[in-house]
Amino acid sequence: MSTPVYLSNRGNSLRQHRGILQEGFAQYVVNKYHDTNNPDGIINMGTSENKLCYDLLYKRLTHPDMLHIDPSLLQYSDSRGHAFLREVVAEFLSHYCCSPNPLKPDNVVVMNGCTSLFSCIAAVICDPKDAILIPTPFYGAITEDLHLYSDVKLFHVPLDCEADGKDSRAFHLTVGKLEEGLKRAKEEGLTVRALILMNPHNPLAEIYTPEEMFAFLEFCKRNELHVIVDEVYMLTVFDKSVSFHSVLSVDSLPDPQRTHVMWGLSKDFALSGIRVGTLYTENKDLLEALAQLGSFHSVPGSTQHQVAQLLQDREWIDEQFLPENRRRLKAAHSYLAQELQSMGISYLDRPACLYVWADLRKNTLFEELALWRSFLRHKVVLSCGQAFFCSTPGWFRFVFADQQHHLQLGQFAPFNMYIPSTKSSDQLKEKDSPVPDTASLITEEFVLLDCQASRPTESLDSLIGTLRHQIHSSDWLEKNTPELSAGEDPEILDVFKALLQRARK
Amino acid sequence: MSTPVYLSNRGNSLRQHRGILQEGFAQYVVNKYHDTNNPDGIINMGTSENKLCYDLLYKRLTHPDMLHIDPSLLQYSDSRGHAFLREVVAEFLSHYCCSPNPLKPDNVVVMNGCTSLFSCIAAVICDPKDAILIPTPFYGAITEDLHLYSDVKLFHVPLDCEADGKDSRAFHLTVGKLEEGLKRAKEEGLTVRALILMNPHNPLAEIYTPEEMFAFLEFCKRNELHVIVDEVYMLTVFDKSVSFHSVLSVDSLPDPQRTHVMWGLSKDFALSGIRVGTLYTENKDLLEALAQLGSFHSVPGSTQHQVAQLLQDREWIDEQFLPENRRRLKAAHSYLAQELQSMGISYLDRPACLYVWADLRKNTLFEELALWRSFLRHKVVLSCGQAFFCSTPGWFRFVFADQQHHLQLGQFAPFNMYIPSTKSSDQLKEKDSPVPDTASLITEEFVLLDCQASRPTESLDSLIGTLRHQIHSSDWLEKNTPELSAGEDPEILDVFKALLQRARK
Repeated sequence: MSTPVYLSNRGNSLRQHRGILQEGFAQYVVNKYHDTNNPDGIINMGTSENKLCYDLLYKRLTHPDMLHIDPSLLQYSDSRGHAFLREVVAEFLSHYCCSPNPLKPDNVVVMNGCTSLFSCIAAVICDPKDAILIPTPFYGAITEDLHLYSDVKLFHVPLDCEADGKDSRAFHLTVGKLEEGLKRAKEEGLTVRALILMNPHNPLAEIYTPEEMFAFLEFCKRNELHVIVDEVYMLTVFDKSVSFHSVLSVDSLPDPQRTHVMWGLSKDFALSGIRVGTLYTENKDLLEALAQLGSFHSVPGSTQHQVAQLLQDREWIDEQFLPENRRRLKAAHSYLAQELQSMGISYLDRPACLYVWADLRKNTLFEELALWRSFLRHKVVLSCGQAFFCSTPGWFRFVFADQQHHLQLGQFAPFNMYIPSTKSSDQLKEKDSPVPDTASLITEEFVLLDCQASRPTESLDSLIGTLRHQIHSSDWLEKNTPELSAGEDPEILDVFKALLQRARK
Repeated sequence: MSTPVYLSNRGNSLRQHRGILQEGFAQYVVNKYHDTNNPDGIINMGTSENKLCYDLLYKRLTHPDMLHIDPSLLQYSDSRGHAFLREVVAEFLSHYCCSPNPLKPDNVVVMNGCTSLFSCIAAVICDPKDAILIPTPFYGAITEDLHLYSDVKLFHVPLDCEADGKDSRAFHLTVGKLEEGLKRAKEEGLTVRALILMNPHNPLAEIYTPEEMFAFLEFCKRNELHVIVDEVYMLTVFDKSVSFHSVLSVDSLPDPQRTHVMWGLSKDFALSGIRVGTLYTENKDLLEALAQLGSFHSVPGSTQHQVAQLLQDREWIDEQFLPENRRRLKAAHSYLAQELQSMGISYLDRPACLYVWADLRKNTLFEELALWRSFLRHKVVLSCGQAFFCSTPGWFRFVFADQQHHLQLGQFAPFNMYIPSTKSSDQLKEKDSPVPDTASLITEEFVLLDCQASRPTESLDSLIGTLRHQIHSSDWLEKNTPELSAGEDPEILDVFKALLQRARK
C-alpha cells in the first residue's frame, strides 16, 4: 500500500477520516437526482439546503446590479471582508436581530462560510486538545470544523429524547445539564474554553426562549466560557405565532467579550453554494486574531459585492423573498409531517429550519446505521442520529425544503421493507415447517417485505413471533446462518438476519 | 491588559504575529491612493498585483455569460471544486503548460487561492514541526501559509546575491546548494518533507531552464522529497524571446507522485481579489486528503462558473488579454527600469512577473527596515528583502504593474533623502565649525537631504567624510546625541543619526 509513504501521519489521518454526513454527500454530489437528466440519481434529504426558492433567487441574482466590477473587487482586500460589506452586514443584523443599538462594522468578520468561522474561532480561543461543550444531538460536521485544522475536541452534553419531568420536553437543554457536563469534562482533565449553542437548533429545530438563552449565557459567564451562538436559521421560522430572539437583541449581555454570534446566507437565503458566513463579536483580541487567519477563508470581491446588494435590498427581502419562502417552507413541512404521520413515525413538530427530527425506533428492524446505508443504497440520503451524536439511536433528520415529489416517503424501498404489512405477516404465519433452503427463504422474504402498502407497525412483532416459532419448530435456523445466493439483493439478507437475531433473543 | 484572558496561547500568538508584508498591506488597505478620491493615500508598490488591465477585465467580466445562475451553483458542491471547473482547468493547463498528454480533471483541486493550497498541502504532507526547504529570497507570505494553521517550518537555503563563478549568476540556485541545505536541516534534527520552487520566481523573476528544473526534480526524487512548484506567473512573461517551461510539460517526471503544481488567476489574470488557486497532482492520497480540507477553502459556485467561462474563452485570452497585457507589462517594466537606472540603483533585469528585484545597498544610509518604514511613512509601500528572508540586507522588490505616474520613483521623499545630491554634499563641506545646536543642524540636514534632483551616489561617501571631519574638528558631536526639536520630521533625525554612526566608524 502506498498510503503511509506519501502523506504525514496527520495527512493519512485526515485522508482516512470520513464522517457519515460526508459519506452520504460524497455519493450524492457525483450522482444527483434530476427529474429528467438523472431520474435514477440520489435524492438528498440529508443535506440541510433550501431548494424551494431558486426562482426567486434567480430573478434577484441575475438583476444587472449583480454584475458590477470595480478594480478594488479584483484586488486583495481586508482579510475580515471588504469594509462596504461589513457595513451592510452590521446594518442587516442590527435590523433583523433587533439590536438595542446599531451594531458596528468593525465587529463584523466575513468568511467563506460558518465552517471556516468555527475552525478559526477554535484555533484562537483554544489550544490543541482543548475542548468545547456542546449539547447532543447537534449538527455533526462541527466536529470536523473544530478538529481537522485546529485539533479541538467537542465535549458532549447528552440530552435525553424522553421528557423527564413536568416542565421538561424531549431533548431539553437545561443549565443543570450544562453544569454537569462541564464538571465531567473537568474530571476528565480537559480544558473547556467555550460552549456552542445553535438557535434555532440543528437538528432539533428548537427555538430557545430569551429566558433560557439568558440562563445559558449566565452559565458561561460564571464559568468564564466563551459562547458561540450559531443563528444561521434565524430567519427560517415559518409560523408567525413563534418568535425567534437573537442574542444580539439582548440589552445587556452577561459577558459581551465572550459572546460571539454567527450567521450566514446558506440557510436563511438558500445560498449554501455562495459560501458566506459572518461573525459578530465585541472582542477586539478575537477580531485581530481572526484577521490573521482570514486570508485562508477569503470571499471573492465580486461575491462580496453581490451579497451586499442582496442584504441591503430590504424591499426584496421583506416583500418578496421572506414571505414567499416562509409560505413554501410551511407547506413543505406540512407535507412531510403528513407523510411521517401516515407511516406511524413520530417526530418533533417545530415551525423552524429546513428539517424534521424523527424517531424511527419503532419503525425499523435495523440498527440505525444499517438503515441509513440501506436508504443510501436505494438512492436516498438521510442524516441519521449517529451523525449528530444523538445519545439514543434510531433518530433521523429529514430535510423537507425540496419539491413535494421528492418527499414522498412511501416511494422509498427501505420504508417498504421495514414496515411490514399485515398481509406479509399473514404470509409468514402460513409457513411453519419445513424450513426452506436459504435461497428460497430469502426470495420469499423479499416478496414478504417488498410490499407496496405501508401499514401500522404491530405486524413487526407478529413477524418476529412467527419467526421465533419457526426456529423452535426446526433446528435449521438455529444451526445455520443464511447466505446470499447469486443475484439476490444483499439488503434482503440483512433484513432477514436482523429479523432472525430478534427472534432468537 | 485583557490579552491573555480571552484567547488561548495559540490565539495570542496568532494575534500578535505580524509579518512585514502584512504590516504594509494593513496600512494600505484602509488608505488606498486614488488619483481624485484620495490623492494623499498610500501608493502600493509592495503587493504583487497587476493593475494595468482592468479595462480588458471589466469588458470580459461584465459580459452577460458571467451572470449565470443555476441551482447547483447555489448549493454545496464537491469540496475539490465543481466538476465542470476542474474539467476546464485541466484543459487550460494542458494547453498552456504544453502537457504531453491531456491532464485529468480528477487530478485538479480548486481552492480559494494558493495561500489555502499551501496551508492544506503542508497539513497533509507534514506533521507539526516538520520542515519544507525553500531557497531565499522567496515570497515571504508562504511562511505564514505553512505555519499559521499547519505548524510547518520553512528551512531556508540562502542564495548569494553575488555570482560566485563563471557559470553563476546572482541568487543562483543549484542542486549543490539544495543538497547542502538538506544536510544542514537534517543535522538540526528536522524532518524535511518537501521543496518549494517558484517558477517564474518571486521576487527574483527568474525563469529556470528545463535542465535546471529537471535537476531540482531529480534532487527531490533522490531524497524522497515532495516538490511543490508554484507557477502562478507562468503566463506573465513579456519578452517573446524568453520561454517558460512548465513542470507539467515534462514528458517523464522523475517522481510524479511527489510532484505537485500550483497555478491561479491572481497574477496571470490580474484577479487576486477573485481568490482562485488550482493544484495539479497525480497523487491520489494527497487528493483525497486535500478534499477533506476543501470545505474550509471553498469558492462560491457563481465564481467557479465565471472562472470556467474565462478560462475556456481562448479567443479572448489569446487574441485580446495576453498580448495586450504583455505589451503593457513590458512598457511598465521599461519605465521602472529607467527610473531605477536614473537613480543609480542596480536591479535584476528579467522579462517576467510584475516586479523588479533591486539592490539599494549603495543608495541608502539606513538599515533596510528603517528605509522600508520611511517609505511607508511617506505613503509608499514597498517590499524589503527581509520580508523575503534575503540573506543580504538592502534589496527591495518594486512592483511595476501600475499606472506610470505611480512609478515615478523620484517623487518619493525617501529617495530624495537617501541619495544626496552633489549640491547638498557641497553645502555640508562649507560647514566646518563651529558645530551648530542640534535643532538647527537637523533643520539644515533637512534642507540638505530633501533636494529634488536625484544624482549619482558618490556624494554619499563624501557626505560621510565631511561629517567625520566635523566630528574630529569639534567635540560636540562626539559627546552628544542629537535630539529632535518640536515640529521636526523624526525621519530627518534618523537620517542624521545614521550618517553620524557611519562617520564615527
